[in-house]
Amino acid sequence: MIGAMATQAPLRVGIAGLGTVGAAVVRRLDLLRDAAALRTGRPVLVTAVSARSRAKIRDVALGGMTWVDDPTQLARLPEVDVVVELIGGQAGVAKATVEAALAAGKSVVTANKALLAHHGVALALAAEKAGAALSFEAAVAGGIPIIKTLREGLSGNRVERVEGILNGTCNYILTRMEAEGLDFSTCLAEAQRLGYAEADPSFDIDGFDTAHKLAILASLAFGVAPDPERLQVEGIRSIAPADLKAADELGYRIKLLGVAQRVGSRIDGRVTPTMVPKSSALAQVGGVTNAVTVFADAIGELTMMGPGAGGEATASAVVADIVDIARGAVSLPFGLPSTALAAADMVPPPEQTSGFYLRLSVRDRPGAVASIAARMARQGISFESIVQRHPSTTPPGQAVDAVPVVLVTYETVTAHLRAALDAVIGDDTIVGAPQVISIDRR
Amino acid sequence: MIGAMATQAPLRVGIAGLGTVGAAVVRRLDLLRDAAALRTGRPVLVTAVSARSRAKIRDVALGGMTWVDDPTQLARLPEVDVVVELIGGQAGVAKATVEAALAAGKSVVTANKALLAHHGVALALAAEKAGAALSFEAAVAGGIPIIKTLREGLSGNRVERVEGILNGTCNYILTRMEAEGLDFSTCLAEAQRLGYAEADPSFDIDGFDTAHKLAILASLAFGVAPDPERLQVEGIRSIAPADLKAADELGYRIKLLGVAQRVGSRIDGRVTPTMVPKSSALAQVGGVTNAVTVFADAIGELTMMGPGAGGEATASAVVADIVDIARGAVSLPFGLPSTALAAADMVPPPEQTSGFYLRLSVRDRPGAVASIAARMARQGISFESIVQRHPSTTPPGQAVDAVPVVLVTYETVTAHLRAALDAVIGDDTIVGAPQVISIDRR
Repeated sequence: MIGAMATQAPLRVGIAGLGTVGAAVVRRLDLLRDAAALRTGRPVLVTAVSARSRAKIRDVALGGMTWVDDPTQLARLPEVDVVVELIGGQAGVAKATVEAALAAGKSVVTANKALLAHHGVALALAAEKAGAALSFEAAVAGGIPIIKTLREGLSGNRVERVEGILNGTCNYILTRMEAEGLDFSTCLAEAQRLGYAEADPSFDIDGFDTAHKLAILASLAFGVAPDPERLQVEGIRSIAPADLKAADELGYRIKLLGVAQRVGSRIDGRVTPTMVPKSSALAQVGGVTNAVTVFADAIGELTMMGPGAGGEATASAVVADIVDIARGAVSLPFGLPSTALAAADMVPPPEQTSGFYLRLSVRDRPGAVASIAARMARQGISFESIVQRHPSTTPPGQAVDAVPVVLVTYETVTAHLRAALDAVIGDDTIVGAPQVISIDRR
Repeated sequence: MIGAMATQAPLRVGIAGLGTVGAAVVRRLDLLRDAAALRTGRPVLVTAVSARSRAKIRDVALGGMTWVDDPTQLARLPEVDVVVELIGGQAGVAKATVEAALAAGKSVVTANKALLAHHGVALALAAEKAGAALSFEAAVAGGIPIIKTLREGLSGNRVERVEGILNGTCNYILTRMEAEGLDFSTCLAEAQRLGYAEADPSFDIDGFDTAHKLAILASLAFGVAPDPERLQVEGIRSIAPADLKAADELGYRIKLLGVAQRVGSRIDGRVTPTMVPKSSALAQVGGVTNAVTVFADAIGELTMMGPGAGGEATASAVVADIVDIARGAVSLPFGLPSTALAAADMVPPPEQTSGFYLRLSVRDRPGAVASIAARMARQGISFESIVQRHPSTTPPGQAVDAVPVVLVTYETVTAHLRAALDAVIGDDTIVGAPQVISIDRR
């Protein structure tokens, strides 16, 4: 394959799904036609497309391409070597299309994180049996080639930890809240207006999108089967301007992080709002940008920052996968044979450890803070700082007979923190629910 | 190759050069033996080694490996499939070893940036003719997989610009100077004491190391032949604490950057100390860390940060190249056939444009600054800011009858700036040579 000439047979691409990403893939393959032929030694051509409504397709020249209404039919067309699945969803037509393509011995390129996170091992097995590729660079962090980096670029390492800002919607909202002191719902509405958030934003802001991506990254990093159901997942709905202000004063920023790391022979995986030091690489990542940091034995720490979404950036990843297939340089989907991907032994959430930021509305009476500190001490929890401020004016939502208290703990077992907070709630020392945010001090 | 079983023949590796990196490669291939076999479907074994002095080899188990004194002989051994060249130097034994390996049809992995920068096209041609790999991830930015990213991960893009902090020695010195207000020679001595700088530091601090790496990145980014001789190169010897202090006040940090970008159909390539905004990703990169930012049409901006040197980090890159070869997934050395790599049409240095920071010792007499401004205006140069301060005490090296003046220009053609400064010098308005540093406002 090395030094192959452009006299080889073309690679014929069928695209299922012609939304923003699909249209950008068609345009990019046309724009980069000469470069792709030079890189791969063969022409790379889109020969067939499929989408819900042919009438809606704009801005894409479809001349000479076969149109099929049913993407599973596209997956079986003899004039298609590679099927690009851009339909989305963890089941239904997307899954049927990918399965049909692999069953027909065709390689698949997909941006479908939900499909990979839930059915990755079974699909990888089908691809390996067929001698076909199953490539999904576009499924995680858009234009950042983190899949290739974990699967190939860092193969000389044992990875210890992977963490990232993987959802642009959440990072946009948190960045706006921090910069302008706005509340969550105002920034969510703004994100929706700008097209950064869906009309039903739950999938993004409640952390599920990040969990799907983290499950895929953890699989590549640790050689385990992806399983988003076994990650602890918490979104950003509860984050208040008061938390961002306190984080700033303490030297942190709040990011929705997906984090997976080895703890002995087990894996600790979680998606939570997290305070990261302002001096860290991840703290610099604002707006819809994504970033991933990998900690590994040989390289120490590697960070990649770039666009996490958008038609062109996602198309960049899809085209790179197609070019790899065209030049015959294809990896096993998860870097290892799918039969070697065992279920991960996960650290149960109560056993997870972290530093914690706590913001409590403490009843304004003598001994209240001392009583809270005693409850914490009984669970072996010690504090880096305790800040109690009598506000000059009572902030909205703050009970008039209560004062805000911010506590920062050292590394603590989650179950111990929960037991201490349950005791504090039982004592009726605080008003409302405590706000709890993890702190990542690296 | 996909789904191949470990019953395939082993890949037999010969290592020429057993310094810090070579020893780390031997240890890593042993440590990752099982993982590499799973990833590639075949055992990966070191079968032969060569180094200057067998007596000096420590901490490496060499049992079962063939020892040869002459690395060019190692390159021809029948029990070696891949030759890892870690000797260094753009000519001599290193070049002879790589040429011998390729002539014998063997693949080559090398960390040798000087060799690749000067002889990359000829060696790539030899590799392509032999159907062999020529892989050099370790040659640029150590443990950061930027070669793979440019060559494969971003193949769906047209790259517009690549820039980076590519020399850890320089970045360590500039970071120390900035943090502690120390002068260049003190920090260089400290870097030498810590092993970050060579006894003869010129190759690093005068920018040649960065130029070699930039030449390779530019080749991959723009599809041109690497040629370090045609880059404008300036090191960091002239940077003074006063410059770092002024940069800080203006909102910048000073980094030694390698920058290559398209300007129309030409390429502008330079290695210079550069002021970058404190908010930029590159400004966050301190100490011996390296970073590369790629600007391209589909992804916009992608930044990678990680270890630029060190035995383990460099070995990470070497092992990743070996694993790619073992699984048969090999790219053309520069992404395109070597016959397609034309000589770049470079922008001549006088035509290069930049914003500039100027620090002048201006004679303390009426009208001096106005005369300088007039000389600049005559060349069409306008200023973002002019700061003149009568220091409370005369700083060392400052003439007693002169005051320091800092000027910041808008985007300016280098030749116009030089003409204006020549005129200023002819006017005898300033004492000593003007300090000129580029400003990158992105």
